[in-house]
Amino acid sequence: MTTTATPLQAAASAAPSGNLEISISRGDLLRELTAAQSVVERKTTIPILSNFLFEADDDRLTITATDLDQSLRTSTTAKVKKPGACTIPARKLYDYIKLLPEGEISIKLMDNHWVQIRAGRSNTKMVGMARANFPTVPEFPETGALKVNVAALRSMISKTIFAISNEESRYTLNGALLVLKSESMAMVATDGHRLAHIERFGETISGVSGEKKTLIPRKCLGELSSLLANTEDDTLEFADDEQTLYFRIGGRVLTSRKLTGQFPNYEAVLPRDNNKFVIVRSEDLMGAIQRVAQFADERSGAIKIRMEQNELKISSSSTDSGESEDTIETPYSYDPLVVGFNSAYLLDFLKAIGNTGEVRLEFKDAQSAGQMRPEESGEDSKYRYILMPMRI
Amino acid sequence: MTTTATPLQAAASAAPSGNLEISISRGDLLRELTAAQSVVERKTTIPILSNFLFEADDDRLTITATDLDQSLRTSTTAKVKKPGACTIPARKLYDYIKLLPEGEISIKLMDNHWVQIRAGRSNTKMVGMARANFPTVPEFPETGALKVNVAALRSMISKTIFAISNEESRYTLNGALLVLKSESMAMVATDGHRLAHIERFGETISGVSGEKKTLIPRKCLGELSSLLANTEDDTLEFADDEQTLYFRIGGRVLTSRKLTGQFPNYEAVLPRDNNKFVIVRSEDLMGAIQRVAQFADERSGAIKIRMEQNELKISSSSTDSGESEDTIETPYSYDPLVVGFNSAYLLDFLKAIGNTGEVRLEFKDAQSAGQMRPEESGEDSKYRYILMPMRI
Repeated sequence: MTTTATPLQAAASAAPSGNLEISISRGDLLRELTAAQSVVERKTTIPILSNFLFEADDDRLTITATDLDQSLRTSTTAKVKKPGACTIPARKLYDYIKLLPEGEISIKLMDNHWVQIRAGRSNTKMVGMARANFPTVPEFPETGALKVNVAALRSMISKTIFAISNEESRYTLNGALLVLKSESMAMVATDGHRLAHIERFGETISGVSGEKKTLIPRKCLGELSSLLANTEDDTLEFADDEQTLYFRIGGRVLTSRKLTGQFPNYEAVLPRDNNKFVIVRSEDLMGAIQRVAQFADERSGAIKIRMEQNELKISSSSTDSGESEDTIETPYSYDPLVVGFNSAYLLDFLKAIGNTGEVRLEFKDAQSAGQMRPEESGEDSKYRYILMPMRI
Repeated sequence: MTTTATPLQAAASAAPSGNLEISISRGDLLRELTAAQSVVERKTTIPILSNFLFEADDDRLTITATDLDQSLRTSTTAKVKKPGACTIPARKLYDYIKLLPEGEISIKLMDNHWVQIRAGRSNTKMVGMARANFPTVPEFPETGALKVNVAALRSMISKTIFAISNEESRYTLNGALLVLKSESMAMVATDGHRLAHIERFGETISGVSGEKKTLIPRKCLGELSSLLANTEDDTLEFADDEQTLYFRIGGRVLTSRKLTGQFPNYEAVLPRDNNKFVIVRSEDLMGAIQRVAQFADERSGAIKIRMEQNELKISSSSTDSGESEDTIETPYSYDPLVVGFNSAYLLDFLKAIGNTGEVRLEFKDAQSAGQMRPEESGEDSKYRYILMPMRI
């Protein structure tokens, strides 16, 4: 329990606690604030969580933000005149620093937790809070971290995150499952109506024996995404303990409370005998679905996919707005088949593959799950998307 | 009264009423729908007002939209197979046409007011309403129109529209006053707290004797702005009758119901003895105000402007967030003066002049209205902005 952040637990006593006084370039400061500000708590129920913790020592400024579920620690070089620590209202500071011109900024802790910020001919004092009230955040473990490829993880997140459930009550579906093996990695997410699964081969992940499964909360995946997009490093370090996930990316440490509970046995729902298929250009399919979806029932978003003799027809109708049909010519020689799907779910997948190339749609019958795959996936990855049909 | 649109009054009987059937290029159609869609009524209280009226005759398609306060008529060439008229849900049609690829679109009125829209391999039927229910819109008067310069009017609107009152109850302040004379034109808007006034000389407006004052509603100014931005014509035609304003721009006709009531006697509030002034770069002033405004009282937005020996200081403070001050060096040799203003109002003016060049601030004392002007205004126009001070 000692690693979990709580507001009742004061900061580690080893941290600097003097009257911080530093000078830092606006560019460096803004870059780190930008990375940290999205972790700051939006609600103001616990005021200290709306603050950044600033700690200065050894010519480095370390900035910490947390909402108790997550924390981010990031640091940059600064001229430290006096080591020390203070907290500063995060949103106000971020907005203010954005508005300053390039140049040196001096930051100084004053009496009563006020913090003075000077730059050029601008002089501001902000009302901070006592540094002792800032919760301790978990420290990256000293041993046991795995190295994961940055580009691979980033791609896997973007190809699964949209399928995570929005229903807060479906606790174990509020994240994506990361599956690490010594020679492959996979990620899977589902909301019970659709499931996105991507597997990558040829990634050597040293230190994994057998299979390591980790459920990563959606919010954490979102933070990870933006940290991964803004690093030049090729690998990140990943570790966990009983309660917490840890990611170290280019010197920044993101932690997240773990989701508890059992992720569903997704392997059981992967279709194995979908023996009817069509191949269409992603762009054609997306255009047709977008147009036809305008006339779908607003609540369900249901559209009909009809396959027959070398034609794929997409159609919808609603009593309010009318009816619409689009036809795509494509080889199809099986028995005719009509299946209903949620148009928004179909579009999510087409967006995830960047709406390029060809897509393969695989079906069994109108009652069974359909599967979508990019037609030209390389040998190093396998991406599939499974959709439950709708009654139409 | 006969020119005012009302839903109870059926369309003019001279209009075509057959089973419309046309073919039109997607580009032409989308351009005209884009122009017309912003006039369509957003509320759905009167369903017919959510529709476009389509009228086809003599190889032209005319599209009409109205919310009863305003109307817009626009037209373009089309292949008319059968002249006629129909109404089509505006928002749905606009969204659908945007999603179609370039090419020819055929539009055909079917039974029960259904409208068929075909393009390539896309086929849609939309539920329209009876053409007879579409209100008559006022017709541009045959005589008495004035010619007004497009660029001049567009610039005058952008320099005054932001000062129009948002309070619906202040009826006569919900528009800007256009003042046309034979050799000049002016526009003025005020919300009681600030007033924007621009006058242009050297515009010859033939047909005006003495002075013609017209109050133009804010919504109409907004529509005018976008019509003026999308025309290649140099002049527009302007006319009015007892109830209605008429603007013809590049073949499109915008009408607006007149605002009734007396615009305030703005000339009485123009300051005449503001004999203390400073000149600052607009960009410097804007940066300083934006930074300092972060720490102003949230409700009032009040900031303090202090002028003393060659310095302009801008400052704010609030009990919640702290205090902030910016200093700009600039020649000033009068008695020191401190005046309070709404920071948002100051920023509105700086944005209106494009945040370039220098700005002159003119004051009398802390209780009197201040005036802002661009320092380098040419001889052909005079732009000024008057602001009531705030108690600080």
